[in-house]
Amino acid sequence: MAQSYPIDIPSPDFDVGDPAATRRAIRDGRFTGFTNLVARDFVQGNLVAVPEAHADAFELYCRSNPQALPILGRSEPGSRTIPALAADLDLARDTGGYMVFRDGELAETPRDASHAWRDDLVSFVLGCSFSFEAILQAHGVRLRHLDEGNVSAMYETTRDTVPVGPFSGKLIVSMRALSPTDAIRATILSARYPRYHGAPVSLGLPEDLGIADLANSYGGHGLTRLNPGELPVFWACGATGQNAMRNARLPLCITHYKAHMVVTDLRLPKD
Amino acid sequence: MAQSYPIDIPSPDFDVGDPAATRRAIRDGRFTGFTNLVARDFVQGNLVAVPEAHADAFELYCRSNPQALPILGRSEPGSRTIPALAADLDLARDTGGYMVFRDGELAETPRDASHAWRDDLVSFVLGCSFSFEAILQAHGVRLRHLDEGNVSAMYETTRDTVPVGPFSGKLIVSMRALSPTDAIRATILSARYPRYHGAPVSLGLPEDLGIADLANSYGGHGLTRLNPGELPVFWACGATGQNAMRNARLPLCITHYKAHMVVTDLRLPKD
Repeated sequence: MAQSYPIDIPSPDFDVGDPAATRRAIRDGRFTGFTNLVARDFVQGNLVAVPEAHADAFELYCRSNPQALPILGRSEPGSRTIPALAADLDLARDTGGYMVFRDGELAETPRDASHAWRDDLVSFVLGCSFSFEAILQAHGVRLRHLDEGNVSAMYETTRDTVPVGPFSGKLIVSMRALSPTDAIRATILSARYPRYHGAPVSLGLPEDLGIADLANSYGGHGLTRLNPGELPVFWACGATGQNAMRNARLPLCITHYKAHMVVTDLRLPKD
Repeated sequence: MAQSYPIDIPSPDFDVGDPAATRRAIRDGRFTGFTNLVARDFVQGNLVAVPEAHADAFELYCRSNPQALPILGRSEPGSRTIPALAADLDLARDTGGYMVFRDGELAETPRDASHAWRDDLVSFVLGCSFSFEAILQAHGVRLRHLDEGNVSAMYETTRDTVPVGPFSGKLIVSMRALSPTDAIRATILSARYPRYHGAPVSLGLPEDLGIADLANSYGGHGLTRLNPGELPVFWACGATGQNAMRNARLPLCITHYKAHMVVTDLRLPKD
C-alpha cells in the first residue's frame, strides 16, 4: 500500500514514506513527532534493552506472552543494531525518544540514549500495533485517533501475564474507537498478523479487562473518549514489556518513549 | 468434529449425528424438534420455494445479497430434491415444519408440505448459521442459547437489501449473546465460512442496525436477554429471503418453519 495518509509535518525535508530517511531525520533531530504516521509501509517495533544477565529471562517472558510481546529481533550484547531489521539501525538514537529506568524507576527521557548505553545491553524489538494501523486504513477502517492527530490510548488491565523469573505484571492494551462494522473488519484483518499483536483481546466492554474508566489511560495520553456509535476495541500492547521490566527493578533498562517506535526496513504485507 | 453436544430428545430412536437418519426421523414424525442440535457435523440450510416464473429473479436477489442469502443449491422446476445436497432429500417433507404463503400472507404451517407443492416450484436452499454453531463450539465458544435449549434470536434491521425485480426488504439478522473473547473468536472463525453467512455484520450496539429493543425479536422467539459481560453479535440471516418473498407477494411460496432447517449430507469442514 502506498504512503497515503497525510501527516502533520510542516514541509518535511525527508521522504516520510522511506524508513531509512525517516531514521536519519529522527537521528538528526529534523523529525521529532510520533512515528505512527511515517514510514507507514514498514513494520515498527517497541524497544526494550536489558542487561545481558536478564536477557534470556526476558526473552522467555516475551515468548510466554506472545500476543503482547512478539519478538521481531534481538541484538547481540552491546550491539546497538539488529541487522535483520535494518542495515543502518542505531537503536540508541533512531527512535527519537527514550526512557531510561534505573532500579525500575524512570531516571530520564532523553532524545538520544547513547550516553546511557552499556556494553552489556541486549536489545529486543517487539511488534507494535502501529504496524497494522496502515493495513487497517488501506482496507477502509476509520481510525479516528489518527484523523485527530492523536495516538491510540493504552490501559493497564487486571489480566496477569505469565510470569518468568523476575518478569511479571498486568497485560497492557491499546484501544481504538471503532464503528461496529470497522471493529469486525479490524478483528479479521489484525488476526492475520500475530507479529503485531494479532486479533484484539477484548472489545465492547471495558470492564471485561477490569478497566473502570476509559478516561484514565496508561501514561495519560491517546484518544480515550468514545463517540456515539463507537466501540472500544482492545489489542495486547508491547508496553506490557516496559511494565514487566519496571516490576523486575532491573539496575538498568532502556526503552523507547511513548509513540516513538523503532522504524524498521521490514515491508508490511501488501494484502 | 464429533457429535458432542447433548440434545434434549428423550430416548431418540435414531442416530442424531446422521443426517439421513435425521431426515427419516423428521419425515416419519419421530423427531419434531428444532434442527439446531442434530446432525451437527453437517450443513443445514433455509428453504425458499418459489414459482418458476420468479425463480431467476429470486436467484439474482440472493446473489445480490450473498451474505444473507448464500445459495447452497437450486432444484429443477417441480423437483422436490437437490441431489448435490443429499441423495434422498424430500424438500416437501424433510424439515418437519413449513410456512405456506399465498399472495405474501401466511396461509398455513404444516408439518408436511406435500399437499401444497406445485409442479412449477423451484426450491432454493440457502446457507444457515446453524452450520457454524457446531464449529464455534468445537473451538470453545460458549453459545448460551444452546445451553439453555433455545435458538438464536432474529431481528429486522433498518438496513436495506439490494432489490431485484419484485424482491426487496430489510436485512434480517440472527443474534448470539457472547463474551468479548468469544465475540472475537466467533468473528474470526465465521469469517472463514461465507456459505453460512460469514463474519458478523455488527456487534455490541443494537442501534447500529436500528434495533431499538433486543426483547422484540423477529418472530418473537430465541434468546434475547443479555447477561452482564455479554455482547450481542449479529449475523446476516437467511430469513431475509422469507421477508423479501413476503414483500414480493408471490401467489405461492413455501419456506421452512423457524429453526426447522433442511439437513444436508454436506459435511462441515473439520478445522
